[in-house]
Amino acid sequence: MRIEKDLLGEREVPTDVYYGIHTLRALENFPISGYRVAPTLIKAIAVIKKAAAAVNTELGYLSKEKAQAIGIAADEVIGGQWQEQFVVDALQGGAGTSTNMNINEVLANRAIELLGGQRGDYNIIHPLNHVNMAQSTNDVYPTALRIAAIWLLKPLSEGCAALQDALQAKEAEFAGVIKVGRTEMQDALPVMLGQEFSAYAGAIARDRWRLHKVEERLRQAALGGTAVGTGLNADKKYIFMVNDRVRQYAGIGLARAENMIDVTQNADVFVEVSGLLKALAVNLGKMAHDFRLLSSGPRAGLGEIRLPERQAGSSIMPGKINPIIPEAINQIAFHVMAADMVIAMAAQSGQLELNPFMPLIAHHLLESLTILTNAVKMVNEFCVQGITANVERCREMLNNSVISVTALVPHIGYDLASQVARKAMEYGITVREAVIELAILPVEKIDAILDPRAMTRPGIAGAPK
Amino acid sequence: MRIEKDLLGEREVPTDVYYGIHTLRALENFPISGYRVAPTLIKAIAVIKKAAAAVNTELGYLSKEKAQAIGIAADEVIGGQWQEQFVVDALQGGAGTSTNMNINEVLANRAIELLGGQRGDYNIIHPLNHVNMAQSTNDVYPTALRIAAIWLLKPLSEGCAALQDALQAKEAEFAGVIKVGRTEMQDALPVMLGQEFSAYAGAIARDRWRLHKVEERLRQAALGGTAVGTGLNADKKYIFMVNDRVRQYAGIGLARAENMIDVTQNADVFVEVSGLLKALAVNLGKMAHDFRLLSSGPRAGLGEIRLPERQAGSSIMPGKINPIIPEAINQIAFHVMAADMVIAMAAQSGQLELNPFMPLIAHHLLESLTILTNAVKMVNEFCVQGITANVERCREMLNNSVISVTALVPHIGYDLASQVARKAMEYGITVREAVIELAILPVEKIDAILDPRAMTRPGIAGAPK
Amino acid sequence: MRIEKDLLGEREVPTDVYYGIHTLRALENFPISGYRVAPTLIKAIAVIKKAAAAVNTELGYLSKEKAQAIGIAADEVIGGQWQEQFVVDALQGGAGTSTNMNINEVLANRAIELLGGQRGDYNIIHPLNHVNMAQSTNDVYPTALRIAAIWLLKPLSEGCAALQDALQAKEAEFAGVIKVGRTEMQDALPVMLGQEFSAYAGAIARDRWRLHKVEERLRQAALGGTAVGTGLNADKKYIFMVNDRVRQYAGIGLARAENMIDVTQNADVFVEVSGLLKALAVNLGKMAHDFRLLSSGPRAGLGEIRLPERQAGSSIMPGKINPIIPEAINQIAFHVMAADMVIAMAAQSGQLELNPFMPLIAHHLLESLTILTNAVKMVNEFCVQGITANVERCREMLNNSVISVTALVPHIGYDLASQVARKAMEYGITVREAVIELAILPVEKIDAILDPRAMTRPGIAGAPK
Amino acid sequence: MRIEKDLLGEREVPTDVYYGIHTLRALENFPISGYRVAPTLIKAIAVIKKAAAAVNTELGYLSKEKAQAIGIAADEVIGGQWQEQFVVDALQGGAGTSTNMNINEVLANRAIELLGGQRGDYNIIHPLNHVNMAQSTNDVYPTALRIAAIWLLKPLSEGCAALQDALQAKEAEFAGVIKVGRTEMQDALPVMLGQEFSAYAGAIARDRWRLHKVEERLRQAALGGTAVGTGLNADKKYIFMVNDRVRQYAGIGLARAENMIDVTQNADVFVEVSGLLKALAVNLGKMAHDFRLLSSGPRAGLGEIRLPERQAGSSIMPGKINPIIPEAINQIAFHVMAADMVIAMAAQSGQLELNPFMPLIAHHLLESLTILTNAVKMVNEFCVQGITANVERCREMLNNSVISVTALVPHIGYDLASQVARKAMEYGITVREAVIELAILPVEKIDAILDPRAMTRPGIAGAPK
Repeated sequence: MRIEKDLLGEREVPTDVYYGIHTLRALENFPISGYRVAPTLIKAIAVIKKAAAAVNTELGYLSKEKAQAIGIAADEVIGGQWQEQFVVDALQGGAGTSTNMNINEVLANRAIELLGGQRGDYNIIHPLNHVNMAQSTNDVYPTALRIAAIWLLKPLSEGCAALQDALQAKEAEFAGVIKVGRTEMQDALPVMLGQEFSAYAGAIARDRWRLHKVEERLRQAALGGTAVGTGLNADKKYIFMVNDRVRQYAGIGLARAENMIDVTQNADVFVEVSGLLKALAVNLGKMAHDFRLLSSGPRAGLGEIRLPERQAGSSIMPGKINPIIPEAINQIAFHVMAADMVIAMAAQSGQLELNPFMPLIAHHLLESLTILTNAVKMVNEFCVQGITANVERCREMLNNSVISVTALVPHIGYDLASQVARKAMEYGITVREAVIELAILPVEKIDAILDPRAMTRPGIAGAPK
Repeated sequence: MRIEKDLLGEREVPTDVYYGIHTLRALENFPISGYRVAPTLIKAIAVIKKAAAAVNTELGYLSKEKAQAIGIAADEVIGGQWQEQFVVDALQGGAGTSTNMNINEVLANRAIELLGGQRGDYNIIHPLNHVNMAQSTNDVYPTALRIAAIWLLKPLSEGCAALQDALQAKEAEFAGVIKVGRTEMQDALPVMLGQEFSAYAGAIARDRWRLHKVEERLRQAALGGTAVGTGLNADKKYIFMVNDRVRQYAGIGLARAENMIDVTQNADVFVEVSGLLKALAVNLGKMAHDFRLLSSGPRAGLGEIRLPERQAGSSIMPGKINPIIPEAINQIAFHVMAADMVIAMAAQSGQLELNPFMPLIAHHLLESLTILTNAVKMVNEFCVQGITANVERCREMLNNSVISVTALVPHIGYDLASQVARKAMEYGITVREAVIELAILPVEKIDAILDPRAMTRPGIAGAPK
Repeated sequence: MRIEKDLLGEREVPTDVYYGIHTLRALENFPISGYRVAPTLIKAIAVIKKAAAAVNTELGYLSKEKAQAIGIAADEVIGGQWQEQFVVDALQGGAGTSTNMNINEVLANRAIELLGGQRGDYNIIHPLNHVNMAQSTNDVYPTALRIAAIWLLKPLSEGCAALQDALQAKEAEFAGVIKVGRTEMQDALPVMLGQEFSAYAGAIARDRWRLHKVEERLRQAALGGTAVGTGLNADKKYIFMVNDRVRQYAGIGLARAENMIDVTQNADVFVEVSGLLKALAVNLGKMAHDFRLLSSGPRAGLGEIRLPERQAGSSIMPGKINPIIPEAINQIAFHVMAADMVIAMAAQSGQLELNPFMPLIAHHLLESLTILTNAVKMVNEFCVQGITANVERCREMLNNSVISVTALVPHIGYDLASQVARKAMEYGITVREAVIELAILPVEKIDAILDPRAMTRPGIAGAPK
Repeated sequence: MRIEKDLLGEREVPTDVYYGIHTLRALENFPISGYRVAPTLIKAIAVIKKAAAAVNTELGYLSKEKAQAIGIAADEVIGGQWQEQFVVDALQGGAGTSTNMNINEVLANRAIELLGGQRGDYNIIHPLNHVNMAQSTNDVYPTALRIAAIWLLKPLSEGCAALQDALQAKEAEFAGVIKVGRTEMQDALPVMLGQEFSAYAGAIARDRWRLHKVEERLRQAALGGTAVGTGLNADKKYIFMVNDRVRQYAGIGLARAENMIDVTQNADVFVEVSGLLKALAVNLGKMAHDFRLLSSGPRAGLGEIRLPERQAGSSIMPGKINPIIPEAINQIAFHVMAADMVIAMAAQSGQLELNPFMPLIAHHLLESLTILTNAVKMVNEFCVQGITANVERCREMLNNSVISVTALVPHIGYDLASQVARKAMEYGITVREAVIELAILPVEKIDAILDPRAMTRPGIAGAPK
């Protein structure tokens, strides 16, 4: 044990840990969820610490030796080391101060060690005076969250691109598979199965575009604003230099926010990003539910498509295979939709110069980004790519339906067409039979009108060219 | 009474109404909320009906006389007439078909009347064969919702601009009013009251930008896609012509969707728009709550600002004035946040070729647009413009606080500064007194460091220039 | 025009209206939603006004003449008169004060009129000194909301009882209709269609029980607590007498809350009630979605049940009938689920001695009660009562399926049964054929095991009795 | 590696793991959240497995030796062993089958080992034929969730009791601390600080009662219903015996559901429980926000109470202490409110004989129970118990306020009292001074009326006794 001290008094800290007294208190204060802070957020903060140390050295506030040691420690964290040292609960109170403190302490102690000192000897490197120099949680944390979100948007966007490709491949593969359309779960005009996949592809294409555009909105850095955005304790040159440096280290576009007071306290940009993630969740959820409907059966359902078989579906019913991947996607969609609500509630509850609920926002936003990235990969690789069409079933269903009467409307009017449909249903005959019986159109004309393939294209079926 | 007939049989319809049997059945089927369909949506559908009639005439499917009568009837509806004829409940089932039917019937009967016929004589003009020609609810309704939303975005955007102006005027007015900042409801570094208003203005400026950008996303029209987006029963030329004509009549940018099947069934664009409205709600809510905090008192609260007095606040406590406008804004924010959840749930629940829950989406999206437009105007005119600063109270609060120790950190370090703060609190003395007692800095240096105005600007207070 | 005056100054009030200056200001202050305050809430407040007047007279604070006039005016409002005088927007800020003021003024002016005076002559009867005597919005409004909710729970509960009856009638009607069960939309063990309806009935029975029990939770009245629950300005005897009198006039059980401070500020009871309404919405939504699945088709879907035909379903596809009632139910379910979120957000945002967002809570709670009452009646009368079974389709679907292999598991084990299922699917043969081919069980044993009716009852099929 | 086989083929399974091929596939299929299934749920399922094995032995379906080995293995899991073997993602698709399979396999392999066999030698004990005998995921999983929820309700309820005690202790401690009340954040009638704590205690008392009552609702077990609730493959005696045995092993009241088909498919009971957890969250959130308001300052806020100091609050502002525990509570409240929405969405999305989204419901319900248990303990021990009153600040604030005019209303009327209030505010004088100046009441009467302590009790202040 080593002894550390803060304004509340002394505490014993285990000798072998890199975190210190502030982290220890936070660990004790927040026995809440057991969830750890997202590693991506930790890394983004470490990038900021490294940048701040470098700039503070350049400006003469920090010795080169200290800055180098802090930089090496930060690089280790960025590389994935010391994750077990970041112990504060993800749902911590306090606007993220405990996470910032945790990183300050780990970097300080690791840097002390690198300089040959003993952990806890903060005369060598002080977590607050040196690692946190010119910074406040209130500028570091929201900026780090923006960086982390931008980092996570990239794989999500790539995953959407791959999913869109897979859907378009199916669009091509199923381009000639004609089937009954369904509106409100009732038989409707025929479509090609490929057209159905084109609609999924179209939705995901919009999602990609949204994710691409929203990245810009996250690029505003608040570093140098310190506690309330006014910039006290940060050298004016620091403000310009640190944001440049972070952009360079993080490998992403970032610009200094024009109004740091605004950016420090308002969390609406996270609501905006989350809202777009929710739109993606909605599209995935709709598609997944469609997959479950279309693959229902195998014999007593629609059965128009077959999903890849991924695992036995039942502990009691042998041979049963369930649409587990779409089901998981639907669950993820619900989960992300609720996360969006949490983020909005938290963002709306900011007070005056700060939003104290940034840790909750960060937890849910980064979780949604991660889970959705997993979701788009999962639905693509475990489901979409392996979907096959049951061409016969599609044709059989279509032939059964009477909705082709619609094509008769331009020729015989809505009311008469309604009667044809009723008659066909009542007597269990086809539309062709029913309309022939009416003897108002020549048979060849009827056949031209009722050509199902023509019904999947724009135009008035049976009209003279 | 007149007799009308549909596929379910005959019904008596009151002689004096313009709607017909389809509307009557829907009226009976949906005794749900008592809310009417948004007038803006009705008008947008009327625009489409007018455009379709014009194009159908041009293409030779509809007589000029009929098209003119339909056009005049549609213009009357667009102008605000016949609102009382649109009687179907806003929360109707059926994907909007009943609203479409309602408009078809009202326009048909009004056009029949204009042509000298009797209401109900659908040989003259038929609601479905003529008014609805080449259309389906499934292409008309979502397109109309996009048009209505674009129409409503404009006044909302203008209202945000006016609100931003008002906030910036206050930013200027209060530029010199120094006060204590607060993070996590605890005394923090000083800010100017004007800076606080600049943060509100910044948030609203982002909202304006979002509303401006999202309009583009709504500009995809699905007309000509008919029932499932494939375009059956719509002449290919119609598809091109009708979207042009609607753009012209509606006075807004609109383009034919590339993939009509996608646009017919997917509702994610409304989720996207709603998500941005929610971001605005979040910003308004945060600001409104701040106003309630800052104006709390008048004597036993923060009392740093005064809101305009709008009405007596209590039926029992005389002289009490409450922050009723910000309270209403907070309520609106909650309301809009929940509407966003409804829209997402409904959009996610589309099935195959259609989303049957479009009426729910339409109701909430248009309601949110309308209520938010009222909200930004209300908070601007009834609240922001009349806010005054309690300059003395601001100064007094600031002088009481001990948070200026922060400015000492670059000079004496975090730990020693903590002790100064504790001492000042414990003995009820000022920071200046506490730090002088420590005798580690010359008094003039201390005074340079502790200058509150310097603390509202970037830089290290008391540092040599 | 008449002139009225409040602490903000004088205003002209139209001569013919019964409301006064406080209402007028509120009308101008809240141009928000256009929704009116729920009539049930207005009536509940009128009951309280009548009771308070009676008690104040008994205690000697109010002349008998005044009390009588107020009582008559209140009775008129309770009877449904003067609704057009309650003009303040439902989403008003100010904790309900404006609604209370509105009622105070209407009752005062109506009472003045009854006493032969001129509206506005508050020397005769004063809205605050007399009508509001011994009251505050803060005890009146939450108590009235409880009364209104209890009133509305009764028809909802009765509607649930009727729905349960209808479902149980169908349970009996369909008791012998055997069909395939479906889990995760995949063919599962057989069930009777009647059993499916028993599950719906079971769910609604739980809802009834919940609505019945929750009424008790609403029975705490806060009258006499006045502004903050401490009871200032209310005679101690008044507190006991007024709650008794309200119980009598309202015709429901009500008891004086033990801790009026608690009841004045905490809104959790409305969250509780709303949560149970949401459970009902969830059950209705699940059932409605099942109806849409089971009735899908008519020819290219599951088609196991037929819903009553309520209206033509499509403006373009003749003869199409859609499941519009279940769709409306699903929309209502989403709507109520979101209302529950609003109520929770509003309840959570109370501050100190009061929750300023009571009007939002009241609007959504009473709306949910009303809409759900309409929903259970609608789904019962327009849908459930008319559902018919497609017995042949049910049998055909069941015969197609291979899930009866499950009954073989106790006899041949899970793994071998899996192989049987795979073989039947692969070769398009029946389970019976596939298992006979294996030659591991005598045919008569197989037939005993595979009896589908036996599979809808507990026990091991084919086991020796 | 060992080889295992299922209907999809063979797979290598690591030699040292207790799970088998079904778990392995699920592990690969669901790389979603990284969250593990709640240990409490695993234990509840193990209880069911043990009970089923015992009953199956008694009924002669399973050898005593096998049952004993399964029982020992289950006891080990119940005791907390083998947690690392339950590897399937918490957000798995498939209605919980993968978790059931995971437990079947772990118990089977552990039991095999206990019987001296090699893991994977399912001839000794088979995961499905033996461990899962007479069971389906669809009866096991929902029943286990009910058991787990009941188990977790107990500590939550106890935590609420302890919190209520602590709040009541503060009620007593602060019984004589008079202070200004606040409604809508504006100065209102005086209250005792103890009265404020009585309101918190009252709210938590209601929560306790709710949690107590809702336990009953969870006590319906579906065991023996098997796949769809009809009970195929379960001996009729088994159904009675297994539910008894589970009750005994689980140590809680449980009864066999009357309608197992209902209980297998409907998840409304979890919506109900979650709704009540949300009510608790709302009460905790309101209280936490009040604590943040009342402790705001320390010098430039309300400052009426002091929260225990738990940790340094800022990395930049020395000496700053933040209300981190209440902040965490507010975050938890938002989190639980959103979880409630997820549960409702998932419950509403069940289809026909099953709800495939049980894993999502289980994850959120058990998480909410756990986090709330942590929350009530945390706010009690780290916050409430250490709250102290700033008696002087309370008195000073009260003396400043002018709201005592309310006590004058019964004596001089609302309008005149309003003028007194305005005058006091305008001239910065006290209410006493303002009313004396009016010369309408004798001074001693005024002093009797304006006695603040009298204002915290029911009655008309200054009235003759």
